[in-house]
Amino acid sequence: MFGVTILGNNSALPAYDRHPTAQVVTLDQFQFLVDCGEGTQMQLARYKIRRSRINHIFISHLHGDHYFGLPGLITSMGLLGRDTDLHLYAPPELKPIIDLILSAADTKFGYTLHFHPLDKEGVLVDNAKFSVETFHVYHRIQCWGFIFREKKKPRKINKQAITPYHLNATQYESLKSGEDVTTDTGEVVLNETVTVANTPVRSYAYCADTLHNPTLADKVKHVTMVYHETTYLKGLEERASQRFHSTTHQAADIALKANAGRLLIGHFSSKYEELNDFLEEAREVFPTTDLAIEGVTYRIL
Amino acid sequence: MFGVTILGNNSALPAYDRHPTAQVVTLDQFQFLVDCGEGTQMQLARYKIRRSRINHIFISHLHGDHYFGLPGLITSMGLLGRDTDLHLYAPPELKPIIDLILSAADTKFGYTLHFHPLDKEGVLVDNAKFSVETFHVYHRIQCWGFIFREKKKPRKINKQAITPYHLNATQYESLKSGEDVTTDTGEVVLNETVTVANTPVRSYAYCADTLHNPTLADKVKHVTMVYHETTYLKGLEERASQRFHSTTHQAADIALKANAGRLLIGHFSSKYEELNDFLEEAREVFPTTDLAIEGVTYRIL
Repeated sequence: MFGVTILGNNSALPAYDRHPTAQVVTLDQFQFLVDCGEGTQMQLARYKIRRSRINHIFISHLHGDHYFGLPGLITSMGLLGRDTDLHLYAPPELKPIIDLILSAADTKFGYTLHFHPLDKEGVLVDNAKFSVETFHVYHRIQCWGFIFREKKKPRKINKQAITPYHLNATQYESLKSGEDVTTDTGEVVLNETVTVANTPVRSYAYCADTLHNPTLADKVKHVTMVYHETTYLKGLEERASQRFHSTTHQAADIALKANAGRLLIGHFSSKYEELNDFLEEAREVFPTTDLAIEGVTYRIL
Repeated sequence: MFGVTILGNNSALPAYDRHPTAQVVTLDQFQFLVDCGEGTQMQLARYKIRRSRINHIFISHLHGDHYFGLPGLITSMGLLGRDTDLHLYAPPELKPIIDLILSAADTKFGYTLHFHPLDKEGVLVDNAKFSVETFHVYHRIQCWGFIFREKKKPRKINKQAITPYHLNATQYESLKSGEDVTTDTGEVVLNETVTVANTPVRSYAYCADTLHNPTLADKVKHVTMVYHETTYLKGLEERASQRFHSTTHQAADIALKANAGRLLIGHFSSKYEELNDFLEEAREVFPTTDLAIEGVTYRIL
């Protein structure tokens, strides 16, 4: 399963039982927490997501509605007896804040918290199952987006077609990785004759809080799903720009230019009680748009 | 009205929709926030308490479940355009934490935040309407309790009884403050012949997180209502002591020794889903006990 569960979809002021930003990205057995607004640990409990499965946390920027739930969450993890390492990727200024908070409480965790300061665009995590990249977005203070990608999947082998060749394990793996192989008897097996492509590699991009800036589309090109904030409805482009935020049409414009598969919108201003207009407006430009609704998991397909 | 509204009654780990510690003390037009666990701003909204009326915040100690909601609350006050001064009374180590958080967010408030470091027992606020005192309690890190007291009320004048004396305003005020007065014609009016005592001065003591320590009873002597934590049920005195917390019987013992009017108990461990045993056990020792239930206002009478 590859999907994103919304824990908070509101902008800075909580309103109408909407919470500040937090999302959980699930990729098979891995769970990544993306931003951690105040109340995230309660939202995790509400939607029955186990804190213990989260080993990576990504914080986009240091406006409070994106991280004021973090001290409580990591403290609770300690109280619950966590002993698994936790990796935190965040702007460097967060480190001394956490250090002071832990020192004032005279708290020591039974687990290791690895702090990875965000300082340049590029790959943050890379292993056999997935990669996570970060990129700059355009906000009042330094702010980072993240892309979660599955690893390229091996080609599927047509078992019947390879039976005559009596391949060994190495040759079998070579076929899965797309290569042609030469058998022990010198016969060349062309890859395309015995394999088919696997399902496409899927990806999810989180654009955090940002001004509208078309160069962002290049950074999230061809992702399966992109999350882009829509703090305001269309017509408020000037206010959005003053506050380094975006409108519905601007978010949809990025998804369109990026040729993304789907668009997820959130970070709604507390001036709006009803959200339907956000959906309608974004779909005028980019039809495959969904509203980020708290408690809902959007599958990345 | 003099009362306390409970916003959070749970100990460190939020559970069963119970929240970390926060209380609002209301005294006529004044509202005081006492501790500010994560989610306090949402709890204030849920129970329709206006943030704008809170001008004084008291933080007992720097364990996260007593203040992790503070950065979010004071940031939201700024976003909502507050321009009234806010007074924050807290352990001194909180100041650099707040400064770093505001600096990282590049946030400046449109109001003045006065930070008053807690460093000795005594009076924190003293005006015509009320006083607030602080006192040491006994926790793993430095921790403070608070007593909120009405000011002594003027005696009530029997208007019929003073009519013959044709008193001026100064003489009238002297009678209210309990003095005898001499009229312009030299006649002495004995205070007790024309006034009666007003209702007694009421007080509320908040004992924060603490070990059982009978000397605490001296510090909260004769208060109208005392809040004392009961993290555990009786029988767990050893665990309570190891963790610098108290049990039901220990809290009730303090209320009894202090000769308090009523006892309010809270800070329940997340190991307990049901709270009835807390009430029953405390009442075995101190019958006029109530459970601190979120959303409920307990009047101090």
